[in-house]
Amino acid sequence: MRPPGIIFDLDGTLVDSVYQHVVSWHRALASRGISCAQSRIHRAIGMSGKQFLPKLLRDEGYRPSRRLIERLESAHAKHFNRIIRSVAPFQGTTRLLKVLKRRSIEFAIATSGSAAQTKALLARIKGRPACPVITADDVAEAKPSPDLFELAAVKLKKDPSDCFVVGDSVWDVLAGRRMKASVVALRSGGFDYHELQEAGAYRVYEDVRELEQSLGQLGIPAESDK
Amino acid sequence: MRPPGIIFDLDGTLVDSVYQHVVSWHRALASRGISCAQSRIHRAIGMSGKQFLPKLLRDEGYRPSRRLIERLESAHAKHFNRIIRSVAPFQGTTRLLKVLKRRSIEFAIATSGSAAQTKALLARIKGRPACPVITADDVAEAKPSPDLFELAAVKLKKDPSDCFVVGDSVWDVLAGRRMKASVVALRSGGFDYHELQEAGAYRVYEDVRELEQSLGQLGIPAESDK
Repeated sequence: MRPPGIIFDLDGTLVDSVYQHVVSWHRALASRGISCAQSRIHRAIGMSGKQFLPKLLRDEGYRPSRRLIERLESAHAKHFNRIIRSVAPFQGTTRLLKVLKRRSIEFAIATSGSAAQTKALLARIKGRPACPVITADDVAEAKPSPDLFELAAVKLKKDPSDCFVVGDSVWDVLAGRRMKASVVALRSGGFDYHELQEAGAYRVYEDVRELEQSLGQLGIPAESDK
Repeated sequence: MRPPGIIFDLDGTLVDSVYQHVVSWHRALASRGISCAQSRIHRAIGMSGKQFLPKLLRDEGYRPSRRLIERLESAHAKHFNRIIRSVAPFQGTTRLLKVLKRRSIEFAIATSGSAAQTKALLARIKGRPACPVITADDVAEAKPSPDLFELAAVKLKKDPSDCFVVGDSVWDVLAGRRMKASVVALRSGGFDYHELQEAGAYRVYEDVRELEQSLGQLGIPAESDK
C-alpha cells in the first residue's frame, strides 16, 4: 500500500481566520477611500492580495498600481495582526493532525499568507504536531497557482497525484486540481457546498471534525500499518 | 396595472453589515467561553439571536438558558454598536430606492434587528427616501417567521402575493415564501447563488445594483404611469 500525503491550507481550513481577513481587507480598502462589498472580499480570500487586488480595484474604478497594492497589503497585515488574538483553531484541528501522525500519514501546510503571519497563526494551534510549512514567501506565485502545493508535495516526497489537498476556497480547489491532486474542501471558510463541488472538489465536508470522521472515504486506513 | 410593493431586508441587502454581525456574535460567544466557527454564525445571520442561539448553543454542548441568550444578545449589541461606523450602505442602495420612488413603486424595510440598531443603520444610508420600517420590536417572532414581512405588506396596503421580498439570506427566502410573496435574493450578504436558489428564490442577483438594472424582470415598468 502507498499511503497518501495530505497538504492543508491554513486560513479557513485549520484556523478560523477568514472573517478576520475579510474585515482587515475591508478596513485597508476603506483607509484609502475604496469601498467594496465584504462578500466580494470574502470570495477572494485564499488568494494573496497581489493576486486578487488588481481585478477588484479595476472593478471599483481604481488603477491597480504596484504602489497602491503594496500599501493595501501592508494596511491589511497591520490590521490583521491587531486582531490575530481573536483567531482560534477550529475544533478538531489538533486532533485531526494527531490522528494523522499516529497513522503515519505525512502532511504539510501550504498557505498564501506571509511567513511572519503564518508563524503567528500556527502558534494559535496548541499541541500541533510538527510538519513542513510552505508560505507565499517560498514561491513566486501564491494560489490559485499550484506552486505552493507542488512545493509541499516535494517536501513530503510524494507524487502530486498521491496527495490530497485540503482547503476551504475555490482557489485551493483550482490550485490542487492543477497539480493533479485530489481536493477535499471544507465549508469552514464560509464557501458553500455547491461552489466547492462545482470547482471540482472530490468531497466537501463541513470542517476538520467531519474530515477526521471520513478518513476512510479517502482511503486512509484506520490503523497504522506499523 | 397593479404595481407590486417591495419589502427589503436591511442587513446584507441594503447595508454591508453581515460580516460585522458575524464578528460581533463571535466575540459575544467567546466572552462566555463558547467557541463556534464563524462560518456557522454567518449562516445564521438574518435570524434574531433568540431564533438561532438555542440550536447553536446545544450543538456546542451548552444549555441555552434564557439568561444566557439574553446576555449573548446584549454582548452582541454592545460590540456591534462599537463597530457600526464601519458599516456602509452598498453601492447603489440609495439610487435603487430613489428609482423606485420616482416610478411610484411603494417599498418598506423589514429587519430582524432591534428598533435602536435599525435606526442607527438607516442613518448610514444618506439621502434615503422615507418608507415604512418594521423591526423585531414590532412583532412576536422575527425571521424566519413571516410576521415581519406580513406587517410590512399591511403597511404598504398590498396583498402579500403582490409583494416582492428582497433579502440576502435563506431566512428571508423562507419567510417571504411563507407569506406567499415572490422572493428576490441578493448575494451581497455572502450567501451563495445555489443556497438562495434552492431555498426558493425567484431570482438571485449580485447586489442592489444588479437588481436596479433588472427591475424589468420583476414586471416593474421603466417609467411611472403618472
